[in-house]
Amino acid sequence: MTGIDIALPTDPDDAPLSEALRARFAAIVGTANALTEAADLAAYLEEPRGLFPGRAAMVLRPKTVEEVSAILRLADETKTPIVPQGGNTGLTGGQSPRSPGQIVLSLSRLDRIRAVDPVGRTITVDAGVVLQRVQEAADEAGLLFPLSLGSEGSCEIGGNLASNAGGTGVLAYGNSRELCLGIEAVLAGGEIFHGLRRLKKDNRGYDIRDLLVGSEGTLGVITGAVLRLFPKPAGREVAFVGLASPEAALKLLRIAERHAGGGLTGFEFLPRLGLDFVLRHIEGARDPMAQAHPWYVLVEVSSSRSAEDARETMEALLAEGFEAGIVADAAIAASLAQGDAFWHMRESMSWAQKPEGGSIKHDVSVPVARVPEFLEKAGAAVTAAIPGARICAFGHLGDGNVHYNISQPVGADTAGFLSRWREINGLVHGLVAEMDGSFSAEHGIGLLKREELARTKPALEMHLMRSIKRIFDRNNILNPGKVVQI
Amino acid sequence: MTGIDIALPTDPDDAPLSEALRARFAAIVGTANALTEAADLAAYLEEPRGLFPGRAAMVLRPKTVEEVSAILRLADETKTPIVPQGGNTGLTGGQSPRSPGQIVLSLSRLDRIRAVDPVGRTITVDAGVVLQRVQEAADEAGLLFPLSLGSEGSCEIGGNLASNAGGTGVLAYGNSRELCLGIEAVLAGGEIFHGLRRLKKDNRGYDIRDLLVGSEGTLGVITGAVLRLFPKPAGREVAFVGLASPEAALKLLRIAERHAGGGLTGFEFLPRLGLDFVLRHIEGARDPMAQAHPWYVLVEVSSSRSAEDARETMEALLAEGFEAGIVADAAIAASLAQGDAFWHMRESMSWAQKPEGGSIKHDVSVPVARVPEFLEKAGAAVTAAIPGARICAFGHLGDGNVHYNISQPVGADTAGFLSRWREINGLVHGLVAEMDGSFSAEHGIGLLKREELARTKPALEMHLMRSIKRIFDRNNILNPGKVVQI
Repeated sequence: MTGIDIALPTDPDDAPLSEALRARFAAIVGTANALTEAADLAAYLEEPRGLFPGRAAMVLRPKTVEEVSAILRLADETKTPIVPQGGNTGLTGGQSPRSPGQIVLSLSRLDRIRAVDPVGRTITVDAGVVLQRVQEAADEAGLLFPLSLGSEGSCEIGGNLASNAGGTGVLAYGNSRELCLGIEAVLAGGEIFHGLRRLKKDNRGYDIRDLLVGSEGTLGVITGAVLRLFPKPAGREVAFVGLASPEAALKLLRIAERHAGGGLTGFEFLPRLGLDFVLRHIEGARDPMAQAHPWYVLVEVSSSRSAEDARETMEALLAEGFEAGIVADAAIAASLAQGDAFWHMRESMSWAQKPEGGSIKHDVSVPVARVPEFLEKAGAAVTAAIPGARICAFGHLGDGNVHYNISQPVGADTAGFLSRWREINGLVHGLVAEMDGSFSAEHGIGLLKREELARTKPALEMHLMRSIKRIFDRNNILNPGKVVQI
Repeated sequence: MTGIDIALPTDPDDAPLSEALRARFAAIVGTANALTEAADLAAYLEEPRGLFPGRAAMVLRPKTVEEVSAILRLADETKTPIVPQGGNTGLTGGQSPRSPGQIVLSLSRLDRIRAVDPVGRTITVDAGVVLQRVQEAADEAGLLFPLSLGSEGSCEIGGNLASNAGGTGVLAYGNSRELCLGIEAVLAGGEIFHGLRRLKKDNRGYDIRDLLVGSEGTLGVITGAVLRLFPKPAGREVAFVGLASPEAALKLLRIAERHAGGGLTGFEFLPRLGLDFVLRHIEGARDPMAQAHPWYVLVEVSSSRSAEDARETMEALLAEGFEAGIVADAAIAASLAQGDAFWHMRESMSWAQKPEGGSIKHDVSVPVARVPEFLEKAGAAVTAAIPGARICAFGHLGDGNVHYNISQPVGADTAGFLSRWREINGLVHGLVAEMDGSFSAEHGIGLLKREELARTKPALEMHLMRSIKRIFDRNNILNPGKVVQI
């Protein structure tokens, strides 16, 4: 994209790889899986936002953990930078190679579902299994794997864990980290961390698993994982609710929690502007209600007992919301298909923004109770800075996680608007910091937010992070320049 | 206790503290909170199992985080070993001072509940708040803090987090680690780690919080925490179920999960022998059923909707269990008081074993599906080694966590029986290892299991643990000799 000023770090290039070294790496995986042609590389170099033009010497596609180990051993020995990559869906450039001296290590061919344990409710998978396949394998075993993201059809579970992905299931089931019981990873020197434990309780020493999870490939390359599965709900109800304000949405959240308990499996919010975008640009989208409302909430209730039970719970919580004057209008999905259609509208939000021109994006979280205050203050600051800016703030209200996206004013110059990305980030993230929030709720740091992390995280924590990085990767070959610089 | 051969490490004594240094430490907290008299020290030196006779130069009782910081700064400067201590209820000696050169740092006077956020459902507490007070404060706010342990009336939340305590609530709500959103801790040099975040999603760099949680005071001293609260169930039903075997219990677990989903808030098992001990030694305990059964399960179902809903779910799952021939008999508690009485029987198991003589104890976990196999193999091995040994294996079936306790044969010599502690540990832990289990499910490593950890954990992980310990505590002043030696 032209004109985006996101102040991407311009790290010096690594030395290009020699032909001889390329050949040694290629020999590990076989030439068919060592890609060097520009046409073959393209898919690994481009990323969803177009912010990080990728450059790399080659792409390696190992099939086994042992091949990954051999690659990292050679890389460590020769100080060759390795960029691990799963489905290449990350939004902060963590998976993007940055120089002709770097090698992309694709995990996509590690794609076996190793085992399903229906009694212990676990699934053991290779890192390269696409998230949707994990969901399907769980479903076939009569169970649920609740991690759910817009990119689930192409993102891979290793990348989900490496970035501690969030999504819409966090409300009831937790982040990727909480869904993971065990990890297998290859460390920088090629050593294999054998941590594929299926235990719900294991207090044998420091929690190295959770250090690897969320480290974005900078401490080790996740090659396999044991994931938690859950009983599949017997019933599921989805409602689209119109209300006057974020405050009303928050009140409804508390009511819904009281009624549904752990069965509240979705609570997403979006503004009217977001619904307008969806209705305008997403095929088949229909306004579920006759009248417009300033805000909408998508509520999902699951029941372990029955569809009727889910229905009753949904009706009871909406009735209380109506009586309290919180809910202006509500449409309960009449069928599973309509429920999916409601979800599809929410999940199409990012896509629906694209035809509206440039969008300055944020992935922030604040304490749940402060979401309305954040929206009000951020709205005032942004529209003061850019009159006419169209704020499309949506996301996971129950997690305090707002995708605070700002579409350009109608008719404005896209490049000119996007050139203010950094300035607007500063405004929004400043407010988030004042509210003890996070400028990266679920997307991670990657390259995009590395400088901001270094600037804003307490010096003590940056020191600990750098020290930990040095323990795991003394030669700085694992995804160098991402998350933290040493 | 006489005769116990648990091969406690005999580390060399630290140099005794000079008078001058004692005075400098005392000046930080004031002489009233710097205990040096034997009578004052006693309560800090003795621990529940009587395995770790404590020795210490003094006990410091700071009131503020700043005082903790000043203590650690001075300790680091003077290389004085510090043993952090909460409610002194730990079972592996992690909180026990080991030489006249060590200082006990009691967190008990850091006892403020700092804040409750009913909308974001969090509570922020000092480390020294007794667990039961956290539960009560949550209850007063109409919410639930689900961490629940036998020692909840005296253990402190800082210690719970430092040891990643488990307990009976793990099934539905997770270990202490999963219940914790943010941590405040003082590191070895006195620096304060300001991590009291109230965010459900925060992906800003490596997960240092979870490294501190479960590090048993060896990486930092936890001084405060933000904990997750949950909606308080509207209804709760407890049943005591008699059945033929652990296999039957496991089948009932799956049925119960299917019916209750996240509302299955308790699933504990015990053998007839355990119930016999309870009936014999615990005042007021009554057999809930007319006939004896080989095994029992305590099932708890919670409902967010109503007492009737919980009742219906319980009845439905038991009915299915009866029809399938899994449940032999069941008693649903007729009142909350009776439900509490059922729980009390389960929670009295450890106490009820005491009058039966010596007990060789284990805190193990295996994959849930393998619990019956473990019980069978371990039973055969133990009774072959010690004919007449009375195996009282009970615990958290849904977590695969078995407290595999063995009471001495009737009439046997206690000292002679206990002298085989180490040998029997070897048998049981050997089986656990074969089943990819853990020899410390929820009690931690402390001193008791340090050597076994060093012997059995992969060298790579021990190397990482030692390297991490050195980063956080270069002078080895924080609980030295616990968990891992450097």
